Amino acid sequence: MKNGTLKTVQAFAPATVTNVSCGFDIMGFALETPGDTVKLQLNGTREVRIVEITPASLSLPRDPAQNTAGKAILAMLQALNVTIGIDISIRKQLGIGTGLGSSAASAAAAVVALNVLLGEPLSRQELIPFAVAGEAVSSGSAVHIDNVAASLMGGFVVVRQVRPPDILAIPYPKDLYCAVLHPHLELKTADMRAILHQHIPLSQAVAQWGNIAGLIVGLIQADYALIARSLTDVIVEPIRGQVIPGFSAAQKAALDAGALGSGISGSGPSIFALAVGKQAAQYCGAAMQNVYEQLGINSDVFVSAINPRGAIVTEKDG
Amino acid sequence: MKNGTLKTVQAFAPATVTNVSCGFDIMGFALETPGDTVKLQLNGTREVRIVEITPASLSLPRDPAQNTAGKAILAMLQALNVTIGIDISIRKQLGIGTGLGSSAASAAAAVVALNVLLGEPLSRQELIPFAVAGEAVSSGSAVHIDNVAASLMGGFVVVRQVRPPDILAIPYPKDLYCAVLHPHLELKTADMRAILHQHIPLSQAVAQWGNIAGLIVGLIQADYALIARSLTDVIVEPIRGQVIPGFSAAQKAALDAGALGSGISGSGPSIFALAVGKQAAQYCGAAMQNVYEQLGINSDVFVSAINPRGAIVTEKDG
Repeated sequence: MKNGTLKTVQAFAPATVTNVSCGFDIMGFALETPGDTVKLQLNGTREVRIVEITPASLSLPRDPAQNTAGKAILAMLQALNVTIGIDISIRKQLGIGTGLGSSAASAAAAVVALNVLLGEPLSRQELIPFAVAGEAVSSGSAVHIDNVAASLMGGFVVVRQVRPPDILAIPYPKDLYCAVLHPHLELKTADMRAILHQHIPLSQAVAQWGNIAGLIVGLIQADYALIARSLTDVIVEPIRGQVIPGFSAAQKAALDAGALGSGISGSGPSIFALAVGKQAAQYCGAAMQNVYEQLGINSDVFVSAINPRGAIVTEKDG
Repeated sequence: MKNGTLKTVQAFAPATVTNVSCGFDIMGFALETPGDTVKLQLNGTREVRIVEITPASLSLPRDPAQNTAGKAILAMLQALNVTIGIDISIRKQLGIGTGLGSSAASAAAAVVALNVLLGEPLSRQELIPFAVAGEAVSSGSAVHIDNVAASLMGGFVVVRQVRPPDILAIPYPKDLYCAVLHPHLELKTADMRAILHQHIPLSQAVAQWGNIAGLIVGLIQADYALIARSLTDVIVEPIRGQVIPGFSAAQKAALDAGALGSGISGSGPSIFALAVGKQAAQYCGAAMQNVYEQLGINSDVFVSAINPRGAIVTEKDG
């Protein structure tokens, strides 16, 4: 490994939409914004420290071993057998439990920044396990790597296999835009997973894999009608959709506003809609937000192209 | 509808491999050979008759309403509100219950021939429901249309949805070849379906849809390594594989001989292997046949490219 000559590296990693209707636990894509920024500075000691987290109101752990960015860095330093002292500053644009992969974004930004700080010993794919180790601190589970993969790699990804990770980059039409609505509701990821049935009817599984095949072909061939037909989830959405207040109405509003499809992002409560072109996505976002306004629930809307790059270095100094 | 001026039309429809490891009930592809030939001749009456079935040893029903080709023709004539008398001759290259879509091939050849006889009022996609109605006579079920779709359309197909049929043509590399081994064993399709579990673990479903996504991407991008990694079935093959004598050994022999992947064709007992190039497929076929020779079980081997055309008219006379 060439020894890095840099002293400061800052990276941004985007929020991600995962599951994408039919693709439970295997599909995800990256947004342009929002996302998390992680800045690493050599501190001349042998200690990894978290020196700043904004906004402070998030009350995230400051013990590096308990923090997603901190843990990802510790795991990577250990694997590479490197002992250096690093001050970590984390700036988050999203809270926790949004369904937009906020923890994964912090972990992805951390490993991308560290990799550059160390002179890029690892490829993007090789960074995945360390970001997953970081995300596992907050999710309590290391078996879901869809958010990390999408945030690190960018674009549309399929997690063909978790162990060892086998991540496929799926070509997609460049005028595909996403509106994401984040309602200010608190749902625990662990609870949203616990309500799922551990066994499903074979017939539903068959319906789901038909739609996965359709979505993949639709994305690769830019067949919007096929994408729209395939953005269906007969297994998870019927369960989770019931415990997200306003979900069905918001989904219907997005479809009425012209969305190709709409569903729960990750384990919710955020709701995504895919549309052709930025303006169409903006209509969908406004329509969904209108539903939540009428329910008296505050929300944020993000409209974005699919982010083709994933995590990027935004600043470095020697 | 323009009134056909033809008096005789003969069509050939190919045997098909379905399920294709991970794609249970949604994937299939057509072979070059074997297949079934159906000849239709206007007989000047108002009656549909089956006048010949070869080989006669198959003892197939001669009542058109009970015969796959006959039923497909009756269903199509009724839907089009056409009353004509037709003599049907059927020549089959495969027996029943092979797992190679023999019934579907007869039904597909019948509707393609009838469509031309009537002046082509319907598209290939529109023929599907009538061929499915024909196949249902023998299978006792009209919910599986993968064999019919592959035999009619050719190539690699995905059945995204059964009702109404939504069939996707998947691009595939042109040097993909298939070896099919048909061991002379009798297994009933209905029994092979009955042994499946009606509920499956969600985790297995997730693994399966990762592989489906991988297989589709691999086919479209001609990524043979990805095709090979994805040709895995964690749900159906572990069950059906146990009741096909010699399956595991034949599968291993095919993989050792260089197959990208190998699995059960349809509900068995036939076994397919996919390989790059004709010679590689021939090696795989010979290796599988050798396993069955040692078991003292007779078998046939067919080596074929993927058939891009599906059912075709082979003869017509005015």
